[in-house]
Amino acid sequence: MKRLDVALGERSYPIFIGRNLLAQAELWVSEIAGKQAAVVTNETIAPLYLAQIRQQLEQKEVCETILPDGEQYKTLETLNQIFTDLLEANHNRKTTLIALGGGVVGDMCGFAAASYQRGVDFIQIPTTLLSMVDSSVGGKTGVNHPLGKNMIGAFHQPQCVLADLSLLDTLPEREYAAGVAEVIKYGLICDAPFFDWLEANAEKLMARDGEVLAEAVYRSCQNKAEVVAEDELESGRRAILNLGHTFGHAIETAEGYGSWLHGEAVATGMVLALQLSCRLGWIDASLVERATSLLSSCNLPVEPPKNMNVEQFLLLMGRDKKVIDGRLRLVLLRGLGEAVVTSDAPEQDVVAVLRTAGVAP
Amino acid sequence: MKRLDVALGERSYPIFIGRNLLAQAELWVSEIAGKQAAVVTNETIAPLYLAQIRQQLEQKEVCETILPDGEQYKTLETLNQIFTDLLEANHNRKTTLIALGGGVVGDMCGFAAASYQRGVDFIQIPTTLLSMVDSSVGGKTGVNHPLGKNMIGAFHQPQCVLADLSLLDTLPEREYAAGVAEVIKYGLICDAPFFDWLEANAEKLMARDGEVLAEAVYRSCQNKAEVVAEDELESGRRAILNLGHTFGHAIETAEGYGSWLHGEAVATGMVLALQLSCRLGWIDASLVERATSLLSSCNLPVEPPKNMNVEQFLLLMGRDKKVIDGRLRLVLLRGLGEAVVTSDAPEQDVVAVLRTAGVAP
Repeated sequence: MKRLDVALGERSYPIFIGRNLLAQAELWVSEIAGKQAAVVTNETIAPLYLAQIRQQLEQKEVCETILPDGEQYKTLETLNQIFTDLLEANHNRKTTLIALGGGVVGDMCGFAAASYQRGVDFIQIPTTLLSMVDSSVGGKTGVNHPLGKNMIGAFHQPQCVLADLSLLDTLPEREYAAGVAEVIKYGLICDAPFFDWLEANAEKLMARDGEVLAEAVYRSCQNKAEVVAEDELESGRRAILNLGHTFGHAIETAEGYGSWLHGEAVATGMVLALQLSCRLGWIDASLVERATSLLSSCNLPVEPPKNMNVEQFLLLMGRDKKVIDGRLRLVLLRGLGEAVVTSDAPEQDVVAVLRTAGVAP
Repeated sequence: MKRLDVALGERSYPIFIGRNLLAQAELWVSEIAGKQAAVVTNETIAPLYLAQIRQQLEQKEVCETILPDGEQYKTLETLNQIFTDLLEANHNRKTTLIALGGGVVGDMCGFAAASYQRGVDFIQIPTTLLSMVDSSVGGKTGVNHPLGKNMIGAFHQPQCVLADLSLLDTLPEREYAAGVAEVIKYGLICDAPFFDWLEANAEKLMARDGEVLAEAVYRSCQNKAEVVAEDELESGRRAILNLGHTFGHAIETAEGYGSWLHGEAVATGMVLALQLSCRLGWIDASLVERATSLLSSCNLPVEPPKNMNVEQFLLLMGRDKKVIDGRLRLVLLRGLGEAVVTSDAPEQDVVAVLRTAGVAP
């Protein structure tokens, strides 16, 4: 087992990475301070792993919430179900929420923990590759609004994260690939040697080879933890983690949450961001080619959906959180492993890149 | 004008107390960091003061949300209206929310500010005495759940609070009295000389005498600010501010939010808490008599509603946030100005006090 510490002062916490961690109560049940614990999961994950969790928690007063599965349920209304269950079970301010699921469950359970009685503890047990390498590190929690993704939420750090790689054994192929998109992102934004390593190990990674997978998760979490530790509340550098996300959010919003997976939208968004970086003369066309080819070989989409037009892209990108005082802020590359946050990209170049990628005017 | 600073490290902020402050843009408009501002108010306050606010904000890009008036609308659903308006107006993370209203508007606007894009600035302009002396100091924000009051929320400090006493000119008598209940509370829990002063000035205070009112607001905010500064996240001493609130919450929940005003429920709750303190031998009957008589002379209810029974009280008190690991924690007095948080009150004494106060078995 590997252990990684996210350094955030008094909000610091460990991430445990390895196989069969769920069974090791000393790792995570020990983090529950009170007598009460509430498991939040979804209808897909519950039949697979809820029994194991229950077994570990038999000394606790446990309440369970099983949410419907899917990004389209990441709403205030679904969130309220968690509050109702907690209140019906008389859970107090010393309760600990346990997020057992992917990013949607983690984001909702985390926001529920941030807001229930103005804040209680929570533990993350991610069940997807995406949530292991992305949403379980950094404390971002929240729900969607019909007018924008992740528009309602809080920064709330967990007590610990249990990245139990055994849980990925049941993950469908398409979701696994979506997680790989974020893994590749870390190489692109801040870790060139990791990008090279991923090119060399792409086949093994897609075959879920134990050692390669553990290393990919560890290195991804390490990169993210370093960036987050520098800038917990995203006032500056942390925004580089959003490479591909402004384009990606536009795709997710236009297509309706759940039709494109988050990682898929980010993959295509990263290709567009690299194409724009290249058009501005900041990176070579060969790097765009390498990244596109790596993403493609990992079964990820690299072209925007056919039914969107340029106007729609610009409108939805303008509503993204990365916009400050009306100027479109984007994460672009100055080289491999060198992401920058910039408001310097002229709109006409954004349009040109979208048009070249086949987006209708 | 008086100025009071709430000392909370980098989250410190000033409270301005005086008449005609709304017109002084240098006090509060200067606190708006970006180009956007969003006013959240309700349908009762909007016709009275919204035009004045608009005038001061003419240099800003302003969005307005007018909520229905009443505690029964302090819900996640109403909160969502604020998010919808912000998103439709394309407000970004640099926007500043302005709460123009009483405690309900302040709590909802504050929670919206805590949660919109994971946190934006906000300014409080309380329009009731209760919100000036209580909910605008201390950073507690949130909404109610059908199963409990203030169960969903966040700690989020404003940039500044503008306690413009002119705004109280239009406040109905019953709501004014409800605010006086919290003023009296500060005397009881931590400021004996203030309690004596209130007894001497009760008539002038109820007549809204300018100087007496300014002093009462200043002294209340000062007391609250001191308690909050010691314990921002309510892990200990801050709980003394809840004198009368556990009994009071039970009354508000049983009667339905909005039927008893918060301050009214707290007034009766304080009488019950003092009766219990007396029964435990901690304070003299004469203090219970003095407090009851002062509250009564300020037109506040001092007896629990006739339609509640003991079982209902205990059940609803048990669901209050002040309960830790199943033991009922109450704020009681050890003397005038000496509140303590205790789990020592036997349930049989709570029952006896309720029965003596006329509550059915």
